[in-house]
Amino acid sequence: MDQPAHFSILAGRLRQNAIRQLSYLINRPGVINFSGGVPSPETFPYQAIAEITARLVREQGASVLQYGVTRGNATLIEQVCEYMSAKGVKTDTRQILLTSGSQQGLDLISRILIDPGDVVLVEDPSYIGGLCALQMAGAEIIGVPLAEDGLEIDQLIAQLSLLQRAGRRVKLLYTIPNFQNPSGITLATEKRARLLELAAEYNLIILEDDPYGELYFDDSQPTPTPLKSLDDKGLVVYLGSFSKVLSPGLRTAWIVAPHEIAALIETAKEATDLCSSVFDQAVVSECYRTNLIQGRLAELRAFYRTRAKAMLTTLAAKAPADCHWTKPGGGLFVWMQLAPHISASRLLSTAVEEGVAFVPGRPFYANESKDNVLRLAFSKETPERITIGITKLCALIKETVSERG
Amino acid sequence: MDQPAHFSILAGRLRQNAIRQLSYLINRPGVINFSGGVPSPETFPYQAIAEITARLVREQGASVLQYGVTRGNATLIEQVCEYMSAKGVKTDTRQILLTSGSQQGLDLISRILIDPGDVVLVEDPSYIGGLCALQMAGAEIIGVPLAEDGLEIDQLIAQLSLLQRAGRRVKLLYTIPNFQNPSGITLATEKRARLLELAAEYNLIILEDDPYGELYFDDSQPTPTPLKSLDDKGLVVYLGSFSKVLSPGLRTAWIVAPHEIAALIETAKEATDLCSSVFDQAVVSECYRTNLIQGRLAELRAFYRTRAKAMLTTLAAKAPADCHWTKPGGGLFVWMQLAPHISASRLLSTAVEEGVAFVPGRPFYANESKDNVLRLAFSKETPERITIGITKLCALIKETVSERG
Repeated sequence: MDQPAHFSILAGRLRQNAIRQLSYLINRPGVINFSGGVPSPETFPYQAIAEITARLVREQGASVLQYGVTRGNATLIEQVCEYMSAKGVKTDTRQILLTSGSQQGLDLISRILIDPGDVVLVEDPSYIGGLCALQMAGAEIIGVPLAEDGLEIDQLIAQLSLLQRAGRRVKLLYTIPNFQNPSGITLATEKRARLLELAAEYNLIILEDDPYGELYFDDSQPTPTPLKSLDDKGLVVYLGSFSKVLSPGLRTAWIVAPHEIAALIETAKEATDLCSSVFDQAVVSECYRTNLIQGRLAELRAFYRTRAKAMLTTLAAKAPADCHWTKPGGGLFVWMQLAPHISASRLLSTAVEEGVAFVPGRPFYANESKDNVLRLAFSKETPERITIGITKLCALIKETVSERG
Repeated sequence: MDQPAHFSILAGRLRQNAIRQLSYLINRPGVINFSGGVPSPETFPYQAIAEITARLVREQGASVLQYGVTRGNATLIEQVCEYMSAKGVKTDTRQILLTSGSQQGLDLISRILIDPGDVVLVEDPSYIGGLCALQMAGAEIIGVPLAEDGLEIDQLIAQLSLLQRAGRRVKLLYTIPNFQNPSGITLATEKRARLLELAAEYNLIILEDDPYGELYFDDSQPTPTPLKSLDDKGLVVYLGSFSKVLSPGLRTAWIVAPHEIAALIETAKEATDLCSSVFDQAVVSECYRTNLIQGRLAELRAFYRTRAKAMLTTLAAKAPADCHWTKPGGGLFVWMQLAPHISASRLLSTAVEEGVAFVPGRPFYANESKDNVLRLAFSKETPERITIGITKLCALIKETVSERG
């Protein structure tokens, strides 16, 4: 049978997620793993979740094992509304939908907003999963460079006016303002208000992806304020997630969107899966009620702060002089730039042989395609193993330099 | 902000799922509910699932609460492979993917196969969720009438050759061969082989949706054989589900597809949700291992047989002479045709007032739009309440007749 003839145009646009492809190479036993942007399993509250799951099945099984509404568990939606309020976002339950991870949010929003050929602006580099969803919808993705304090606003404006003059439709700006994936960079406060102004001026929607916002390291500072909290015109669609602060295996995230967009997302979601896991949503809701989410945030921050510190301290002590890296104030990632002639992709093969893994930076770029950059996740390994792994990695980088020299 | 201007063409194609809209009207306390095609919560094995969930979190929490691979839980994929083998389908694990319910399968397959304007043939009437997914992908949906023994093959051939002469591309035939939703009709054995021949002749893919195949009432008969078991040319994509034989809230279903199609679905799924609930898949896998699925099928069949019998017996005794209805050999549904002048939509309002709910047939049709038909699900109510509800409904139908007469 002539199968390819059956495939859709969309099938031709599909790009494999480069990180997830890599996971088959990287997840070897013993390898010190700086690759996956995954939370540490040490942070999962096992006993409490075990107790909650069993109790929910016994006491509410008839509902938690049955089909549910597309919007999501009504109690959890109310809890998300409260959670957003604590982050400075005044919303209402009709603006909130629960999704199977924020990846589903990225996909649904791409589908209801983007037609093939529409322009979407992204941070360059940006989250690969976001790029994949936008790509699948047919977006023409244009990257805007990142400075140390987030998007280069001048370059964003230049790009927007260039596109406007060319008569191109810019639908969306996709941004991860807090402790960005992959760079660890946070958008400066003064740039946030400016971004909202630009969205209004150029009539574009800001898609704010905020999975790491709660994981800041300086507890004396207030939580980074979402762009959504500045949005009085319905320009921002916000994505939040329980993956990093509770458990990603329970696949529960949320969207906050203006009513009309939320209603369209709901209808689209109905046709994509009827509803997300009813059981998982009930578990997350019960975790929220019993303070397993907000009540553990301070502890989580300290946990990841220690790991980030181990990585940054070792990099400062061991990295060659011509390397540069970001100093994240939260999240899971450090972004490292090597000397221009070093290929991170080639370095990876050697590193994995030596027992250290990371993600080469190339696939995170929409336009630029630098190969001398890499992403280091400090979330998964202990501080001791981080020190060992970074020491080893820095030695390998030096060897690469000297081989060439 | 000018929101509608931001919406995609796809957003304009979205159709709300008529049944799920109805659920807000129907799910009143006390109403005898023949509407939802949902399994009875009485069939959920609560104690066993409670024990399994708690044990999995305690013993395998680091993996079941973490991100998982896009294809799905490897153990469960092997179990599905074995389960399919018991149904006469020889397959391999590379042809299998796990999805968040079969609705996700319908959506993913629609996306990778259908371009806007492609023709998809469906049974008329057909499953609303399937129609919604196809519609969202932009399919032109053409219905082929159902006889008492399934698709009208002559009309299918006539339609195929008409479309061929018109130069139209028919990508897919969507069918629910066993105890169809909404009609309860099963495709006759001799028609199955004929369908495969036609798929080969017209170079189209058969999308076989089989959520009810295990729920047959005559235990002395073998399980209805999937079309997939006759497929030696890679023409059939099969959808199976644990929703009706274990729990729909755990959102676990599977696709069996030729390798190349399976690989595309995997890449598309990666961009839609990274992975389905890792926890739910592990729970379902453990249910399978402990024989909570296959070991309870006989019991489930007896359970639904009793309910079907209560409905069919009461209909035979109480329905007006000008009504006709299907006599399903399994599944969850009876499809009832009223006298031509009676509107099932109008009847529903009265019926709900009187404490009985069903789904009017109109939204199940792709082309024909009969309003004198309705779907009666016998899955949710006890035999006693089925008898009461059908008696009441038949009385209402008679009143409608006499009001007019």
